[in-house]
Amino acid sequence: MNFTIGVDLGGTNLRIAAVDSSGKVLERVNASVVRERDAVIEEMCAAILALAGRLKASGQMQGIGVGVPGIIDLASGMLHESPNLPGWEDYPVRQEIERRLGTRVVLENDANAAALGEKWMGAARHVDDMCMVTLGTGVGGGIILGGQIWHGAVGMAGEIGHIMVEPQGAPCGCGSRGCVEQYASATALKRMAREAVAAGTAPGLARALKEGGDLGSKVLFDLAAQGDEAAREIFRRAGRALAMMLAGLINTLNLPVYVIGGGVSAAWDAFAPAMMEEVRARSYVFEATAAPEGQQPNHRNTVIVKATLGNDAGLVGAARLPMLVADTQKSN
Amino acid sequence: MNFTIGVDLGGTNLRIAAVDSSGKVLERVNASVVRERDAVIEEMCAAILALAGRLKASGQMQGIGVGVPGIIDLASGMLHESPNLPGWEDYPVRQEIERRLGTRVVLENDANAAALGEKWMGAARHVDDMCMVTLGTGVGGGIILGGQIWHGAVGMAGEIGHIMVEPQGAPCGCGSRGCVEQYASATALKRMAREAVAAGTAPGLARALKEGGDLGSKVLFDLAAQGDEAAREIFRRAGRALAMMLAGLINTLNLPVYVIGGGVSAAWDAFAPAMMEEVRARSYVFEATAAPEGQQPNHRNTVIVKATLGNDAGLVGAARLPMLVADTQKSN
Repeated sequence: MNFTIGVDLGGTNLRIAAVDSSGKVLERVNASVVRERDAVIEEMCAAILALAGRLKASGQMQGIGVGVPGIIDLASGMLHESPNLPGWEDYPVRQEIERRLGTRVVLENDANAAALGEKWMGAARHVDDMCMVTLGTGVGGGIILGGQIWHGAVGMAGEIGHIMVEPQGAPCGCGSRGCVEQYASATALKRMAREAVAAGTAPGLARALKEGGDLGSKVLFDLAAQGDEAAREIFRRAGRALAMMLAGLINTLNLPVYVIGGGVSAAWDAFAPAMMEEVRARSYVFEATAAPEGQQPNHRNTVIVKATLGNDAGLVGAARLPMLVADTQKSN
Repeated sequence: MNFTIGVDLGGTNLRIAAVDSSGKVLERVNASVVRERDAVIEEMCAAILALAGRLKASGQMQGIGVGVPGIIDLASGMLHESPNLPGWEDYPVRQEIERRLGTRVVLENDANAAALGEKWMGAARHVDDMCMVTLGTGVGGGIILGGQIWHGAVGMAGEIGHIMVEPQGAPCGCGSRGCVEQYASATALKRMAREAVAAGTAPGLARALKEGGDLGSKVLFDLAAQGDEAAREIFRRAGRALAMMLAGLINTLNLPVYVIGGGVSAAWDAFAPAMMEEVRARSYVFEATAAPEGQQPNHRNTVIVKATLGNDAGLVGAARLPMLVADTQKSN
């Protein structure tokens, strides 16, 4: 069985997998990210070569796809901005990998790779057009149109975390204010929790903070599940913010499926009800419905659904990248 | 010279033109819209046949495209919702025209047709991907990707007038609140002017209203040009609202060109400065620049530019519709 190799390079973890053309993960390698970039690249390339070597008997390695966090210049393969990989700015990532491996690699933004993963093997596998929303340290996104990643004029498409949902809201690193990232990312949940504690309106959160909790999305989710009203309100606020973003996307693109993944999506039960209610009120004509995982969507409706691949979305999507390049070349 | 026929059916005017493959208007017919739909369809079909007959000597009629205001079911060719054409709801427009003419016609939403017109012969003629914003009674939009209209799952894409710019803002007919249509359409300008008069903060507008002005965008623009502060603030508000919508589109789609047309775009000088300033602050990475009309955009920038075809955008775009269908069939 021939295969490709996908790499998911995150701020803390480096994950590598060999994936066959049916989407099956044949073998995987996990490593931590030593925060010195040359060592990371060396380790990545050694692991890729070792993996390809081990699988040589069973098939040929057909290509390599790498997902990285940050803004990539698609033409040059440089990483322009990467808050989660300090020291990697303006580093020719693609060129450095290609030089060591002696072969072409396909470089992609991590949220775009995750979108491709969920489109190929996850919650959006029945459709050709979809949008992925990743709720992590920030809010990221990837848009797939006609089965391919929509990059836009210079590869900046999909920065949906910077859609405004509150004109005079919290200042954002991007220079704007009130971006959805300021209300629905893990960072935003923590900030809103601290604000609630400071305002004296969240005794349960104050207690958790005193007891050493970091008020991360996991702690907040547990508190919300236990009925803590302040924690529940924070998730409702996140849900409404996501809904304002989603309603704009629905009215603009009329995609059949929107998939919500990333770490914070584990708190789905806490934010989804408020999100669905608000999308229903704000999106033009169509009702937003949550379809059971992987169900064929009804094309009269818009489906907003939780991602199904979890941490593997970016990894599987990265492995898919060289397959799509090959498909495009064949059809030309 | 072979030609197609484009029809722009509006709430008050019916405009028909024969256009050749270079985009040249060979002949045009204008008629008023008698508000009884069967009579309008009869008149339209008679005018199309007469026009094709007159041009018979010079070339063959290759197809007919019709732009209509409202929401079209693309599969059935029915008009679902059409505030500007009362009585046309759930009317099989395409079928009725085809029956009378004995030939296929391509039906399209008017803002999508205008987008196609500006992409083919207007301000976006140098690019394949663009977004058209029409500022009229409402705020409409059309998105062109890869040279083709992006319809979305059920033809509802491009409803950018219902992107939210003020979470608790003015209620909108779509069921949401604070849609950009409530701040940047001709209707919204009038409402904001009336609100300013009622608040007693706009002596100049109050005077104009007393003297029989309707506080339409033309009257407001003249007042703004004469330095009336209340009128100027209304246009600044419209500009900022448009910017919030545009910044979201830029961050999501990273299109090279956004074209702003429709009646209110005549007041460009009054709203564009505030719009450009706000887009610059709110859009991720790229600076918004106004390019001189029709100039080749710099791909590192996002170009936001006034439409160049004026009232003809929808008409020319409608004539383009059958040409694109023919192209798609050829390439398949």
